Amino acid sequence: MTPALIEELTETAHAMADAARVPILQHFRSDKLSVDNKLADGFDPVTAADKAAEAAMRAVLAVHRPEDAIHGEEQGQTPGSSGLTWVIDPIDGTRAFMCGAPVFGTLIAVHEGAAPILGIIDQPYTGERFLGRPNEAGSAQLTRNGQVRPLATRRGVSLADATLLSTFPEIGTPAEATAFRSIAADARLTRYGLDCYGYALVALGQADLVIEAGLNAYDIQGPMAVVQAAGGIVTNWRGGPCDQGGRVIAAGCPDLHKVVVERLSLADI
Amino acid sequence: MTPALIEELTETAHAMADAARVPILQHFRSDKLSVDNKLADGFDPVTAADKAAEAAMRAVLAVHRPEDAIHGEEQGQTPGSSGLTWVIDPIDGTRAFMCGAPVFGTLIAVHEGAAPILGIIDQPYTGERFLGRPNEAGSAQLTRNGQVRPLATRRGVSLADATLLSTFPEIGTPAEATAFRSIAADARLTRYGLDCYGYALVALGQADLVIEAGLNAYDIQGPMAVVQAAGGIVTNWRGGPCDQGGRVIAAGCPDLHKVVVERLSLADI
Repeated sequence: MTPALIEELTETAHAMADAARVPILQHFRSDKLSVDNKLADGFDPVTAADKAAEAAMRAVLAVHRPEDAIHGEEQGQTPGSSGLTWVIDPIDGTRAFMCGAPVFGTLIAVHEGAAPILGIIDQPYTGERFLGRPNEAGSAQLTRNGQVRPLATRRGVSLADATLLSTFPEIGTPAEATAFRSIAADARLTRYGLDCYGYALVALGQADLVIEAGLNAYDIQGPMAVVQAAGGIVTNWRGGPCDQGGRVIAAGCPDLHKVVVERLSLADI
Repeated sequence: MTPALIEELTETAHAMADAARVPILQHFRSDKLSVDNKLADGFDPVTAADKAAEAAMRAVLAVHRPEDAIHGEEQGQTPGSSGLTWVIDPIDGTRAFMCGAPVFGTLIAVHEGAAPILGIIDQPYTGERFLGRPNEAGSAQLTRNGQVRPLATRRGVSLADATLLSTFPEIGTPAEATAFRSIAADARLTRYGLDCYGYALVALGQADLVIEAGLNAYDIQGPMAVVQAAGGIVTNWRGGPCDQGGRVIAAGCPDLHKVVVERLSLADI
């Protein structure tokens, strides 16, 4: 992949995140928020913001990258011919969004067949945009209000000193929850409720671990690219690839990742 | 209490929150963050930011309200002669702060002997300031970037439709946790990890309930004043006063509050 193509993809990703912010901020904390119930047996709110933000991102792609495939949470798969797929989640953390909490995010990734090569976690309300390009050394950054801060994970942290983040305490299946809790019990601090923002905090070097289960491809590819570009490691619970979702570990440093994979490998899941 | 005095107290509270923001933003997401361990048997991080922010708020009081008493999380009680006490927590949600998550807050309240009559929840990173003056009708507001939004709780929400917030899934004692979970099981959505920011979201009408246990006076008085001024109800789990901390329910509307108090009254605590 040429530097010019990477630059073009980066500009397109920024334009998509900019476009998604408009309907998201219109609907965030709005009284008019309407919530449908996507799943008959659970609570999975889909808001007008979700749908409008994905449509806005697809409109950018239609102009700038019409030959690329798209996999979006709301509208599903659209085929392409370039070998590149945009994997997008307009609002990751819809429940945080519904509560008015600014820890949801718009997720954007470019997948080139084997792995995501570029990712964004965008938080429209705080104005934070986390960008990662794993093939580019030192190219992870947070931009906010025109300021740029390089992202780098925290190194040399043992599990006993680690801050662990996850979305729900009822993570995944009961067996997955048991395995998760065995790690949480030995971490210094465990916090819930951050969705994709947790990965951003690992990339910032403020937290050390995210462990989740039951993810979709569009939940993890953007965060994965950001954490990897910041020096972290993102795999499934066995240490293998997780770009298609499932059970995920994101660790700030290799030693910590190794310890967690070893312990989760013993889990009966 | 005269309108002029309420205005003076409000201006002082704003000046205190402004002063606290400076050291907090200097230390937030800083690599140099040092964490002491306040409790021998637990993890209760106290940062330089906590200490500097309380000192900054006390310096404002020394100039503008030297006759008032102070109860601060870090420096404890300072007596006064006016009958008013400033009850302050420089960083509520220190653990969120330590993770780099912008859901901690600076809490400020003025207590006049029976109850807090004014409160602030300030989020320095997002620039949000939630203000409540319970004796003043319609005087709850969120200010951010010079914009003012009135705060009003959501009304007419049943438990089955309610969004419930709390800081930890391991809330309080085992018996308290059991009682909490019986409510959480019947709520539409339960989210963790928001500390004082959860009360702000109830005041905003974005969430309906906060249930917590083991609070101190400085954890609840600022949030209590904000939620009450926005139309909500804040009591202990029996429906009595909670300004000195302990077990707290904050509800957006009276019917929901009544149902939760009735159910928690049956708990074996």
